[in-house]
Amino acid sequence: MSLIVQKYGGTSVGSVERIQAVAERVKRTRDQGHQVVVVVSAMSGETDRLIGLARAIQPQPVPRELDVLISTGEQVTIALLSMALEAAGCPARSYTGSQVQIRTDSAHNKARISDIDGARVCSDLDAGRVVVVAGFQGIDREGNITTLGRGGSDTSAVAMAAALKADECQIYTDVDGVYTTDPRIEPRARKLDRITFEEMLEMASLGSKVLQIRAVEFAGKYQVPLRVLSSFHDGEGTLISLEEENVEDAKIAGIAFAKDEAKLTVLGVPDQPGIAYKILGPISAANVEVDMIVQNVGSDGATTDFTFTVNRNDYETALRVLKETAEQLSAREVTGDQKIVKLSLVGVGMRSHAGIASRMFEALAHEGINIRMISTSEIKISVVIDEKYLELGVRALHDAFGLDKP
Amino acid sequence: MSLIVQKYGGTSVGSVERIQAVAERVKRTRDQGHQVVVVVSAMSGETDRLIGLARAIQPQPVPRELDVLISTGEQVTIALLSMALEAAGCPARSYTGSQVQIRTDSAHNKARISDIDGARVCSDLDAGRVVVVAGFQGIDREGNITTLGRGGSDTSAVAMAAALKADECQIYTDVDGVYTTDPRIEPRARKLDRITFEEMLEMASLGSKVLQIRAVEFAGKYQVPLRVLSSFHDGEGTLISLEEENVEDAKIAGIAFAKDEAKLTVLGVPDQPGIAYKILGPISAANVEVDMIVQNVGSDGATTDFTFTVNRNDYETALRVLKETAEQLSAREVTGDQKIVKLSLVGVGMRSHAGIASRMFEALAHEGINIRMISTSEIKISVVIDEKYLELGVRALHDAFGLDKP
Repeated sequence: MSLIVQKYGGTSVGSVERIQAVAERVKRTRDQGHQVVVVVSAMSGETDRLIGLARAIQPQPVPRELDVLISTGEQVTIALLSMALEAAGCPARSYTGSQVQIRTDSAHNKARISDIDGARVCSDLDAGRVVVVAGFQGIDREGNITTLGRGGSDTSAVAMAAALKADECQIYTDVDGVYTTDPRIEPRARKLDRITFEEMLEMASLGSKVLQIRAVEFAGKYQVPLRVLSSFHDGEGTLISLEEENVEDAKIAGIAFAKDEAKLTVLGVPDQPGIAYKILGPISAANVEVDMIVQNVGSDGATTDFTFTVNRNDYETALRVLKETAEQLSAREVTGDQKIVKLSLVGVGMRSHAGIASRMFEALAHEGINIRMISTSEIKISVVIDEKYLELGVRALHDAFGLDKP
Repeated sequence: MSLIVQKYGGTSVGSVERIQAVAERVKRTRDQGHQVVVVVSAMSGETDRLIGLARAIQPQPVPRELDVLISTGEQVTIALLSMALEAAGCPARSYTGSQVQIRTDSAHNKARISDIDGARVCSDLDAGRVVVVAGFQGIDREGNITTLGRGGSDTSAVAMAAALKADECQIYTDVDGVYTTDPRIEPRARKLDRITFEEMLEMASLGSKVLQIRAVEFAGKYQVPLRVLSSFHDGEGTLISLEEENVEDAKIAGIAFAKDEAKLTVLGVPDQPGIAYKILGPISAANVEVDMIVQNVGSDGATTDFTFTVNRNDYETALRVLKETAEQLSAREVTGDQKIVKLSLVGVGMRSHAGIASRMFEALAHEGINIRMISTSEIKISVVIDEKYLELGVRALHDAFGLDKP
């Protein structure tokens, strides 16, 4: 007998019929002899409906009250799913974040879980019940309702699994696992049976948004085996594994990409210590997050060129700030480009294998794709290319690294 | 400075605009120097929407989970009203039943409040905040969410007022007070400035459903001054007073009526001890509530005729049960009538004034209205008449007792 935590997102519980389908799936797991804790999100559309009501009253709703409001979304789902389980002959009991005692800090709308009291949940499991827990929410030390921010239900599930020392945390979504890249762009994209936590982190943060990144970090930290599966089809999904067994064979896990990037360059900055801080400090102060950063010595040897990428929504803000800074630093010129994308090759095998980068660059060159920026880390290589080459680039790399083959 | 508890029902908070109007009204009370606790219901229609979702899953939803589900209705309102208050410049903080600690027994869907911990609420009031509390809900000893049953928000408000020793509990509704009778039937019906608790209980239970009866009982027991007012118009409303001052002048408070009554009679039952129990025991066992009961000696002197009224929805059940009983008791005949109504004259002054009953019967006789049953108590006289005479009977009594005049 194993203890399994299953998490179902908003789409999976988006209607009465879908909630009943989830109940059937949960019941099957229990009938196989497992103890099951289910963590659910609000029914799809519900959180947006509630936020719409709040904004109609207050354009910037009081964070504490917004949490009181939107936490009702998951509370509705836990009640309905528990009813559906009982109706299917499966004893069940629901718990809000407050009832479980999912304790968080007091950062409303983006709280972080500090600890979970699993005592009540355990006694229900021992009594043969399925326990249905509201994701996304908790309480702070004073008993105020908090929420974890969008996608926080994944984190709730992983945290429950960690607290209960569950054997596996299964995240049910509308995809049937983690793919080598987005199948809408490369039809030959292949579902991975396993991926490491590090790879998953890079894949998630780079745009393959299957799992909330904080949930993956949490799972890695507490060594919770995590599996991504489909709510709608049967299958083994993708296991995000603790061990890196056989990773030598699988050099590359997949290709992630980020579409909504923009690039800014300041040319001819005096090459002196602290220059990066002088340029990026004001950008950060304007609440713009910077992604890739590249610095090159300028053509004259005395100055340097400095390039970074930001989210496309922040482009105008970043450009304005950068022009002010450039003037103060007597830089030669500021340029920008909003029509770029980032492609990233991800894989733990990359660490020990030379030649991956050159094979990547060769494949892109072969298709006539010009590389605008390069950035590398332990387990990924990212390149910035013109937006129009996105699909071509993904397919070229998918093919070059044979990702369609197991 | 007074401490005032205000309660707003579903219609009063039925839209964003109405919630904003409630916020303005609460703010005005606070600006007059009062401390204010606001108790709210779910937005109108919301509870029914949630129950509809539940029934789509389980025709008889698990009571515990139904409470988890429907308690979200008030939670949405407290958050939105707190936002509206903050937006209007009035510091506010919301509390669910669980957060206040409105403790109840464990009778899900119809729980009774046992006690309230007012500590957190008081400290907020002292800090100058308006406190917004979810009506209709509480928690039991194990931390399970409970609800008080339909209309329970009135009871929540009165219980909060009692726990906080509030100076007044104001119930805002869609009527502007308690009337001498239903103005839709008698256009000359007059709003009462005051009414006693006992009169209010009789008026409420007899069909003038302005206030939940349990709330009135609670207010009487804990001596909480209760006032019914309109959410939509200014005015003093009706004060449900503790003292019966000047009641000698006001003999009659008003005329209540119940439309959905039905009458059953068993004729020629042996007149022996315990006969009432033998007849009504099986009715009660069939979960049918009996209202008026009248027993007369039969025409032969050895048998008796027994008549009682039930809710019209229970008529068929009661008739079936009564026929079985009649056969066992060798009664002569069972008759029934579904086309009846009950009129009641209510007033504490009645106690010390003879002649009220005869004036009542005279007024009805004058209009040719036949009285089918009569039942009296300390402060009311009820008669059963044919349904078709309802409006005529109400107007005749209203006129006979001069209720249109202050």
